[in-house]
Amino acid sequence: MSADVMQKIISLCKRRGFVFQSSEIYGGLKSAYDYGPLGAELKRNIINEWWADMVHRRENVVGLDASIIMQRKVWEASGHLAGFSDPLVDCLVCKNRFRADQAPKLAEGVEAPLSFADKGQAKAAAELIEKQFSLTLERRGKDLHGAKGSGRGYVCPACGSPFLSKERMFNLMFRTSIGATDPLDEIAEAMESGKFAGLSGRELRQAIGEINERSAVYLRPETAQAMFVQFANIQQAMAMKVPFGIAQVGKSFRNEITVEHFIFRSCEFEQMEMEFFCEPETAGEWLDFWRNARMDWWRRYANHPEKFHFREHEADELAHYADKCYDIEYEYPWGQGELEGIANRTDYDLKKHAQHSGQKLEYFDPVKQQKFVPYVIEPAAGATRGLLVYLIDAYCEEQLTDANGKTDTRVVLKLHPRLAPIKVAVLPLVKKDGMPELARKVVEAFWQHGIAARYDETHAIGRRYRRHDEIGTPYCLTIDGQTKDDQTITIRDRDTMEQRRVSVESAVREVEELLRNS
Amino acid sequence: MSADVMQKIISLCKRRGFVFQSSEIYGGLKSAYDYGPLGAELKRNIINEWWADMVHRRENVVGLDASIIMQRKVWEASGHLAGFSDPLVDCLVCKNRFRADQAPKLAEGVEAPLSFADKGQAKAAAELIEKQFSLTLERRGKDLHGAKGSGRGYVCPACGSPFLSKERMFNLMFRTSIGATDPLDEIAEAMESGKFAGLSGRELRQAIGEINERSAVYLRPETAQAMFVQFANIQQAMAMKVPFGIAQVGKSFRNEITVEHFIFRSCEFEQMEMEFFCEPETAGEWLDFWRNARMDWWRRYANHPEKFHFREHEADELAHYADKCYDIEYEYPWGQGELEGIANRTDYDLKKHAQHSGQKLEYFDPVKQQKFVPYVIEPAAGATRGLLVYLIDAYCEEQLTDANGKTDTRVVLKLHPRLAPIKVAVLPLVKKDGMPELARKVVEAFWQHGIAARYDETHAIGRRYRRHDEIGTPYCLTIDGQTKDDQTITIRDRDTMEQRRVSVESAVREVEELLRNS
Repeated sequence: MSADVMQKIISLCKRRGFVFQSSEIYGGLKSAYDYGPLGAELKRNIINEWWADMVHRRENVVGLDASIIMQRKVWEASGHLAGFSDPLVDCLVCKNRFRADQAPKLAEGVEAPLSFADKGQAKAAAELIEKQFSLTLERRGKDLHGAKGSGRGYVCPACGSPFLSKERMFNLMFRTSIGATDPLDEIAEAMESGKFAGLSGRELRQAIGEINERSAVYLRPETAQAMFVQFANIQQAMAMKVPFGIAQVGKSFRNEITVEHFIFRSCEFEQMEMEFFCEPETAGEWLDFWRNARMDWWRRYANHPEKFHFREHEADELAHYADKCYDIEYEYPWGQGELEGIANRTDYDLKKHAQHSGQKLEYFDPVKQQKFVPYVIEPAAGATRGLLVYLIDAYCEEQLTDANGKTDTRVVLKLHPRLAPIKVAVLPLVKKDGMPELARKVVEAFWQHGIAARYDETHAIGRRYRRHDEIGTPYCLTIDGQTKDDQTITIRDRDTMEQRRVSVESAVREVEELLRNS
Repeated sequence: MSADVMQKIISLCKRRGFVFQSSEIYGGLKSAYDYGPLGAELKRNIINEWWADMVHRRENVVGLDASIIMQRKVWEASGHLAGFSDPLVDCLVCKNRFRADQAPKLAEGVEAPLSFADKGQAKAAAELIEKQFSLTLERRGKDLHGAKGSGRGYVCPACGSPFLSKERMFNLMFRTSIGATDPLDEIAEAMESGKFAGLSGRELRQAIGEINERSAVYLRPETAQAMFVQFANIQQAMAMKVPFGIAQVGKSFRNEITVEHFIFRSCEFEQMEMEFFCEPETAGEWLDFWRNARMDWWRRYANHPEKFHFREHEADELAHYADKCYDIEYEYPWGQGELEGIANRTDYDLKKHAQHSGQKLEYFDPVKQQKFVPYVIEPAAGATRGLLVYLIDAYCEEQLTDANGKTDTRVVLKLHPRLAPIKVAVLPLVKKDGMPELARKVVEAFWQHGIAARYDETHAIGRRYRRHDEIGTPYCLTIDGQTKDDQTITIRDRDTMEQRRVSVESAVREVEELLRNS
């Protein structure tokens, strides 16, 4: 795939109404996107296929649609919330970001233990320090000598550097506040009343943090926690027996510092997650079951199933809650990267929430007559990332040669028919002779059967075919001169461009059949 | 309807998995709700019916799925953003909330013009002032005399009272911040550096506000603005001709002070909105068209269509952008109230965004060869409010008398079959004789046809019927002893409780037909 394919896809997305930049007329908002008419349909179709496969067609999985704003205690328990008084620091040498309160201590004036992975890195670091801090250090192999501890009292845990950014409060979660008062107003009030007088930098931040926390709530950074928090409610209301799953689709929000590759990593994104609760000793089997089921699902709609791969997480990259994790990766134009993660989260989350809430989050096995805390297998997929993957998978340029030897490029989105935003375009060959009226009747018949059909009469027929190729419409139905005579219309296949005639009457059934078997 | 019906519905919602309080195990979050397995399906069905009716079955309407976080400039243009330095004040006498900078001025010590709607209110106000402020005023008819202007320099615009709360910053929108720095940290830094020294209360708030605004973004309080901001992109990408509409379903957020009546008014809610762009002179006709179309839609799924009413807004209650507005109101158990608003927003929004962004938001009429700014008709419905309305509409208690004269209460949710979370329950009479196996095959056949079917084998058959009555399942199919002999199963109607036998083979087709004609 050519290097500029992403640019072509991004351009098609805007030109054809798949994806626009959010707030674009105001210069755009960093890393938030609006899904236009076709993008909204494509996303709906991906989500509906997932929901049908994960919820509707499984006896042991039910759905959930939880609120985006959740209590701060949920995030304390889950470990997502580093308090406001836990400042983060960037190392100006190796760029590592770390918590100041957990960094190795080093008194002012004491030799800093600067050390790097190899000689090359040490040399580069020495040059950077010389340039930025006008300090010449002595290099011995991977180590640098001559730097001294600063007044900060600690150094970078990765390279031992005392060259550090200011302490900054930072959290990946979006914070907002709920209720009748604005915390900024309360902070102003506390300032006026002299409550902050004489506080040190850290004490001041702590005091501000405490005021803020009274009304702080957070936008969820993942949909998963709601399934743990509502585990008991759902298990009881639906009389679910372990093993069972709770599935959810919805927006999540992360204040990402690095946003990249169009909608691949953005601050607002949509997830399709399922938490599958099972007996601890069966967790390994279920992990295998779900990673295979999920891989099958992704490949089912793809033109190039060979571009989807498994990758098992190394021990040192596992999340703190996970025992084992597989990523489903895809060969993006910029390299292989994550699409979905399937993790064994063990009983970490249920136990943490039980502990923090004081509520029982257990399951009573009616056969074995005993209680236990289930293990959890989580297939966590990105819906917006999936949309990007299927656009890349579908994007295709074909060189066509006509009868006169003239060549031309056809852009086709070979989207799976079940994912295509428009299933059928109904086209009157010309805007007269009763063709538009009949075409609209055919469209109406498709609507009656719940099939997304679109009437389209603008421009020459060849141009209309190309337009529908470019947005992935699998079938074009054309009403022409012959239709009046024999009640047949042509049906054109997007991928082969072949046309055949079917009776007007059977058109809906034909397409229904094609969609069902696709 | 009995007064406690809301309590019964709320209890059913929790017991059966329709609606739970958000973060419930942590004591709940004020006015945010989680939609459990059945609530999630009911909401999906309502939204899908709306989308099919508003987007898929209309040639001139397309969809949009925009980001929830939007740029602050969008909200400046729309008028939603009262700046941080515009403090609000509550009148402690009449409870009116108003902007301090727009209140009537009154110098300290000057007689306050306290005046009320009638004598009774004046008397009540005098008693409140006496009790809370130990000040006895003289009452003459509707007026109170003897109160004096305070150091604040202004009084309540509604009743002329100088008895006021502190000035408070407050906005209905949820504010968060995006980017690498936390505004609280920057405020702490400015404080440390002495930048705030010697500022007055208002200057201090202004300075804090300015720091905050650098990274502030807002959760949308309505989905509508995205349709205006993306008007030109969508019109061009989809080659739409005026009149046309852009529809969107999604979460909106309002930091409501008063939350009430379960999910009726909550801070996080889901909307189904459409902006219909038309020629200015046709706006009146389209307003009528859409208010009728929307009323028809609501009534289509209701058992009691007579409980839905139109109410035209009085001139003094129209929003600042609206020329005319109709509410569709419903008779809730606590009284008649809003369900949907259909407004003529004129060209207010497009003009405001054009002005603030410097972009052209116009339409070029290819026939008349002229440009104009379209008028907008907006049908704005609440999806979560709609869910509440249909639950109330469906909730039903029936007194049954059996053959022995014993009476019993049957709770039924008479949900429209297209809205019901589960369409078909398939029940083996007993858990043996191959009945579960056959029942699961039948369930599988329904899944193949995209119909939400559920297998259910726990408890006696009568209890299972009642359970499905209570969650609104329109059809129960039972596999019994006769099934093996003649390949028939019973199909039971939720509302009439009548049963008839159909062949196993035709069961899917029968139900499909019932659903299509319902």
